[in-house]
Amino acid sequence: MKLKDKVIVAVIGGGQCSAEEVEMAEAVGRELARRGAVVICGGLGGVMEAVCRGAANEGGLTVGILPGDDPTEANPYVQIPIATGIGHARNVAIVRSAQAIIAIDGDYGTLTEIAFALKYGVPVIGLNTWFLSRNKEENDSIIRVTSAVEAVDKALSLAKRIKVG
Amino acid sequence: MKLKDKVIVAVIGGGQCSAEEVEMAEAVGRELARRGAVVICGGLGGVMEAVCRGAANEGGLTVGILPGDDPTEANPYVQIPIATGIGHARNVAIVRSAQAIIAIDGDYGTLTEIAFALKYGVPVIGLNTWFLSRNKEENDSIIRVTSAVEAVDKALSLAKRIKVG
Amino acid sequence: MKLKDKVIVAVIGGGQCSAEEVEMAEAVGRELARRGAVVICGGLGGVMEAVCRGAANEGGLTVGILPGDDPTEANPYVQIPIATGIGHARNVAIVRSAQAIIAIDGDYGTLTEIAFALKYGVPVIGLNTWFLSRNKEENDSIIRVTSAVEAVDKALSLAKRIKVG
Amino acid sequence: MKLKDKVIVAVIGGGQCSAEEVEMAEAVGRELARRGAVVICGGLGGVMEAVCRGAANEGGLTVGILPGDDPTEANPYVQIPIATGIGHARNVAIVRSAQAIIAIDGDYGTLTEIAFALKYGVPVIGLNTWFLSRNKEENDSIIRVTSAVEAVDKALSLAKRIKVG
Repeated sequence: MKLKDKVIVAVIGGGQCSAEEVEMAEAVGRELARRGAVVICGGLGGVMEAVCRGAANEGGLTVGILPGDDPTEANPYVQIPIATGIGHARNVAIVRSAQAIIAIDGDYGTLTEIAFALKYGVPVIGLNTWFLSRNKEENDSIIRVTSAVEAVDKALSLAKRIKVG
Repeated sequence: MKLKDKVIVAVIGGGQCSAEEVEMAEAVGRELARRGAVVICGGLGGVMEAVCRGAANEGGLTVGILPGDDPTEANPYVQIPIATGIGHARNVAIVRSAQAIIAIDGDYGTLTEIAFALKYGVPVIGLNTWFLSRNKEENDSIIRVTSAVEAVDKALSLAKRIKVG
Repeated sequence: MKLKDKVIVAVIGGGQCSAEEVEMAEAVGRELARRGAVVICGGLGGVMEAVCRGAANEGGLTVGILPGDDPTEANPYVQIPIATGIGHARNVAIVRSAQAIIAIDGDYGTLTEIAFALKYGVPVIGLNTWFLSRNKEENDSIIRVTSAVEAVDKALSLAKRIKVG
Repeated sequence: MKLKDKVIVAVIGGGQCSAEEVEMAEAVGRELARRGAVVICGGLGGVMEAVCRGAANEGGLTVGILPGDDPTEANPYVQIPIATGIGHARNVAIVRSAQAIIAIDGDYGTLTEIAFALKYGVPVIGLNTWFLSRNKEENDSIIRVTSAVEAVDKALSLAKRIKVG
């Protein structure tokens, strides 16, 4: 299989996170790499570093879309650091470059990425992340899962439907 | 009072919206202009056009931060059109340039702006907009109001505390 | 005349500059304000501050498109600070929001703005600024002038042809 | 050698170009791939497509930083398409993510990239590209070469000095 036929999955979450989230993100990264997907993320610490570590340790390819203009700010498990220099506006690029998103917990920055993904119709898989509602009705656009394997399963099956290229 | 001492308030909401939302947005624009605030928004239609019309008709100053690279795409009530050319990444600029945000209903694009504002600590006043929760706990960061006058009251009183310049 | 019928002219140049350039930029700002044009610039120091000071002292309107995400970083003569948060990518927004560009000397950052303007067909008036050539032929797209008044004359006469709105 | 230890070189040039430029760009891509460098570019046609084709045919890795928000707009030889959605502001990201730049001819868009690179201190190797001068003095910051092999030699030798990671 050529690289260009691979599925690209974004993994998003807090730059600071709990030990449980680190474990979860690392497991997601490992599983994505085993299944041949390319991991894209924000390139910094916390969930971003954990998912890259998991993927890189399984021989996967990791891309970090950094907010700053210095590629060396990427965590050590990012193999392709993209230094955008556009700050948090880079969140749009992470979302648009992926065929599916896995959100692990996360704060307001993660919420911007979830919202951009829903706006653009990119499937969002949620592991213990935000709940949204409007006009007293819960918005059920985020697909809820409870394990790393289930998250990757969902991401890959939904991503395939919108396959790029 | 000099222009540079004026408060800048962002008004965000859908590019397409109901007649009620148009009325609400126009009332918010009028009230902001009467109180001497500068209105900043995304510069396009729907809530953005209504708030600019309300403000301009009261002699207020309106700034439109456009996603595209053509200033003529601004609605006719935008007095200072800024053509960013950066697409939805311009949502960050709207939020960061304001001292308070008034969100009127809105879809996922509005949700990205609310999330960026909360991330940066810019006060968010909500008129019939998104509800957020995480880990079964409702997030009460959005200050809920039910009228245009109340929205502007809250925006100006909270904006003053973080006065720019 | 309504604000929206005014011409918007970008003035670009170094964030650090000589006393002569400061004087030139201030004269350009004064002349633009006298002629009713809105000044847009990068919002920081050097040429940017001088042009805003000149314009503001004549009662003109000044807009600063900042690279950072803090409006208070604007120089004190910016009346409408736009905090883009996108770094030097904001140079595109300065250029695209203007109907003509006046370049005063300037370094590589100014050169990016000149090149974006030429790419988009926005007229570029040059006061002691870059010369470009390709394939041994000089590129004469930059309109050379030698005084502030001449620069503003050229900018306004060329800007009118592409009037926005 | 791990992927993260590889040098990333940006190749920039026109989206439309002559047959000679296509040949030159393809030769540059091939040589970069043979020498183990990752190619980054704007992801579209002309020089961008030719350099990716050259690199991909030698088994190299190619990254395309697209202006739009649709990864499928990348040319077929881009293996990692990044859909930034920020238009020409993405030129900054191409430049900042590279350890050296090779410019092949090119129009005003290419000139913005050259200028950003010189601003940030990223080495620029020029194949038949722009000449710059200021105050009657030619600017010799662009390192001139006349063949694809020479361009890659220079890019890799200069890139090593500012090695990332």
